[in-house]
Amino acid sequence: MSTYRFCVSVMPKPGILDPQGRALEGSLPHLGVDSVHEVRVGRRVELSVDGASEGAARAVVERLADELFANPLIESWSVEAMARPALEAAR
Amino acid sequence: MSTYRFCVSVMPKPGILDPQGRALEGSLPHLGVDSVHEVRVGRRVELSVDGASEGAARAVVERLADELFANPLIESWSVEAMARPALEAAR
Repeated sequence: MSTYRFCVSVMPKPGILDPQGRALEGSLPHLGVDSVHEVRVGRRVELSVDGASEGAARAVVERLADELFANPLIESWSVEAMARPALEAAR
Repeated sequence: MSTYRFCVSVMPKPGILDPQGRALEGSLPHLGVDSVHEVRVGRRVELSVDGASEGAARAVVERLADELFANPLIESWSVEAMARPALEAAR
């Protein structure tokens, strides 16, 4: 049994309203920035999973991404394996 | 002048309370999942930047990450260049 670290990126699907992205874009002129566009804001979920293999651990992450982390109607998600650094103790 | 696409990952610093991560962890037992731990939730900001070079564009992104996207007191951020696919028309 090993521990694997993954990151799940959850982004609003194309065409779905993204109020946080619009708010950031609205702030750019105040910072004198006019070269930035197409701002989209989503979530990033990092998690550790115990599993017999990376594949088994990834299957758990994909299930959680679909059922818990994202709303598949309006958000798309992707899973990436992360290097296993000394884990930042988060508690 | 070219357009570059970047993604900025913003995560709560180690030791900083992460209520969204705790909430997700609290939901795991209801899904019958006991192999997941160290859940951390942050933001992912994707943006396009016009610039004379990737370096110049990245400098703009790093300034925005520090001044607008993240609160450096409690969040850390990192910037990654993204492949330039046909951009999902976000508007």
